[in-house]
Amino acid sequence: MNPIITAFESSPDKGRGLARDMRVRWALEEVGQPYDVRLLSFSEMKEPAYRAIQPFGQIPTYQDGTLTLFESGAIVFHIAEQHPGLLPVNPQARARAISWMFAALNTVEPPIGERGINALLERDKSWHEQRVPLIEERIRSRLSELSAHLGPADWLDGEFSAGDLLMVAVLMRLKGSKMLDEHPNLSAYVARSESRPAFQRAFAAQLAVFTNRNAHLGT
Amino acid sequence: MNPIITAFESSPDKGRGLARDMRVRWALEEVGQPYDVRLLSFSEMKEPAYRAIQPFGQIPTYQDGTLTLFESGAIVFHIAEQHPGLLPVNPQARARAISWMFAALNTVEPPIGERGINALLERDKSWHEQRVPLIEERIRSRLSELSAHLGPADWLDGEFSAGDLLMVAVLMRLKGSKMLDEHPNLSAYVARSESRPAFQRAFAAQLAVFTNRNAHLGT
Repeated sequence: MNPIITAFESSPDKGRGLARDMRVRWALEEVGQPYDVRLLSFSEMKEPAYRAIQPFGQIPTYQDGTLTLFESGAIVFHIAEQHPGLLPVNPQARARAISWMFAALNTVEPPIGERGINALLERDKSWHEQRVPLIEERIRSRLSELSAHLGPADWLDGEFSAGDLLMVAVLMRLKGSKMLDEHPNLSAYVARSESRPAFQRAFAAQLAVFTNRNAHLGT
Repeated sequence: MNPIITAFESSPDKGRGLARDMRVRWALEEVGQPYDVRLLSFSEMKEPAYRAIQPFGQIPTYQDGTLTLFESGAIVFHIAEQHPGLLPVNPQARARAISWMFAALNTVEPPIGERGINALLERDKSWHEQRVPLIEERIRSRLSELSAHLGPADWLDGEFSAGDLLMVAVLMRLKGSKMLDEHPNLSAYVARSESRPAFQRAFAAQLAVFTNRNAHLGT
């Protein structure tokens, strides 16, 4: 039995790889673990049966036999613990890679998430436009700091790790803005990640959900 | 040699336990690990020497011999891996506790952090007041979901874990608002955590930094 993850039946990002199942798909591809996908509608995600395994009604979840997990960061970590390839074997390097996982999700992602909320949920508000530069200033601080740390290196700390995987997944949310381009080493870091075969397989799989659905709907 | 953590020399929260060193102090107290503290001024935190160990110029960091870590979530996890008491021994229960660590930091904390940013950095903006109910609505959704999951239980999943520690540290940021009081089980959950001897020792230690400094300054 393959592990089963959940994903959007109809992703709001239209297959651009920004939904959080992408993070888990990518991790599974990096370690060579086949998986199955259960697609959920927005209403199914809010039903009690699903909330029993995901209290916040979000995707993805991860089910492997009797184990059910939620939160993409935790699922990526679980995959990284179960298989070689996403965390260094050396204990100190492993702990540092985990620092980068948390930095991606708790330091770099919040202002990037706020940019999305302003664009989506506060689009019709009088302050929408004026807040853009304020939020972008917060994001730019993080990008400058990240760029300064990365320097000419390929990855954040030695070999590619789950820390890079989550950081790149977070930075991908900025594609379409010009902010990443302001730091050529960060643009190259994202491109380097996207050229990984595991990334490409994961990206194609999540895109296929969108294109198959639209084919099915005749759009 | 005890591990050394960094903390604010002069915390913006005035010793209310909201700075992120509190999370690490609490974890260290739970496992009975003595520690030393290096206090930093705001300018020291932004200097290259500190950024070499904390690329984003934040507190806390954690140094133990040749190992240096950053990100409070990662440090709490490292402490939990090194000592019994903060993660279940059962592998499935352990993985679920880690789900709660990530849920605290990546699902529940972002809107709570945004509330702080609106109160602090956008206080003088024309939209400041109008955004409060919007942000609070996002927080209330998360609190309702968390309250529904917790129900009458003492802790999020079985015994107290690092997942509870981080969740409570995040919820503490809402003290002073009435939002926690809307869910008596969440208020009780926070109070139950605060009554833990380890919490109290950690809280007293971070408060002492503030009171000693003010005594020293004659204020």
